[in-house]
Amino acid sequence: MKFCPNCGSDRLEKRIPAGDNRPRLVCLNCKTIHYSNPKVVAGCLPVWEDKVLLCRRAIEPCYGLWNIPSGYLENGETVEMGAEREVHEEAAAKVRITYLISMYSLPKINQIYLQFVGELINGAYGVGEESLESKLFTEAEIPWEEMAFTSSTFALRRYFEDRKAGLQRLHRGEYPML
Amino acid sequence: MKFCPNCGSDRLEKRIPAGDNRPRLVCLNCKTIHYSNPKVVAGCLPVWEDKVLLCRRAIEPCYGLWNIPSGYLENGETVEMGAEREVHEEAAAKVRITYLISMYSLPKINQIYLQFVGELINGAYGVGEESLESKLFTEAEIPWEEMAFTSSTFALRRYFEDRKAGLQRLHRGEYPML
Repeated sequence: MKFCPNCGSDRLEKRIPAGDNRPRLVCLNCKTIHYSNPKVVAGCLPVWEDKVLLCRRAIEPCYGLWNIPSGYLENGETVEMGAEREVHEEAAAKVRITYLISMYSLPKINQIYLQFVGELINGAYGVGEESLESKLFTEAEIPWEEMAFTSSTFALRRYFEDRKAGLQRLHRGEYPML
Repeated sequence: MKFCPNCGSDRLEKRIPAGDNRPRLVCLNCKTIHYSNPKVVAGCLPVWEDKVLLCRRAIEPCYGLWNIPSGYLENGETVEMGAEREVHEEAAAKVRITYLISMYSLPKINQIYLQFVGELINGAYGVGEESLESKLFTEAEIPWEEMAFTSSTFALRRYFEDRKAGLQRLHRGEYPML
């Protein structure tokens, strides 16, 4: 931020506002305090029979690598709505959400992943605009070395472990480990 | 937002950028697209013996009403760190997080609540700057009619129900019901 979104002034300075305990970007002209907060990345792992659906990214970062359909939650959405939308946008598919499998914090880049497991409706899918390819994988076929993000590797590994044990539960993680 | 934070121009317009599917605030001068996303509210219900710790708000909205210690997640934090900080700021207390009890979406005001249950360390607490009062309540003593937010009522009711059943589990909710 180089100019104040409220008054257009360039007199922005990092300082700790009265009653606060951390530095914020404050406009010295109109006194507005500008807050910046982490974003939610919502996603869902679509499951069909013994397979899961992954998408190969057609966008940076991690172009060409595989991922659980996920993306920034939008204003006006519940977390569930955002996850369903991402599956639709990236894999042209519909899911019925089953449970939340992962809450995964990335404090260095101010992102919180919230990823579900869902049932892939009718086993049907396609390729969304942000994907190069979508594909159903058995556990043995997962391209572990070509996964885009640790958040998705984390959720996928827990999914397969828990499936063997008959469990549906939330896992919490973070990267880097603090 | 009245001025572009990138170039200071007031030529901002809502339009759907190429490759996007929803209106964004776009600067017609420097072409920057300005995104706005939901915020995470992190919190934790501190438990001590058969009681839970609530705080009475010294700030608006809902001044004077009771709440589970909760507040906006900050950049650089994991969800757990944010929840622990809020307990410290609002109740001058320390908690050991046990489990995530609630993921609660408020799509009309672009907030996602993520609330834990935690163990109140040594049963010690005080009154933070944003609180008028902190107090341990048994279930029978909870001031249900003086609770600040539906998100906390939701988590509290589920907590007491599950405690009777010996369960520790996540509940998902939203307001208003969609």
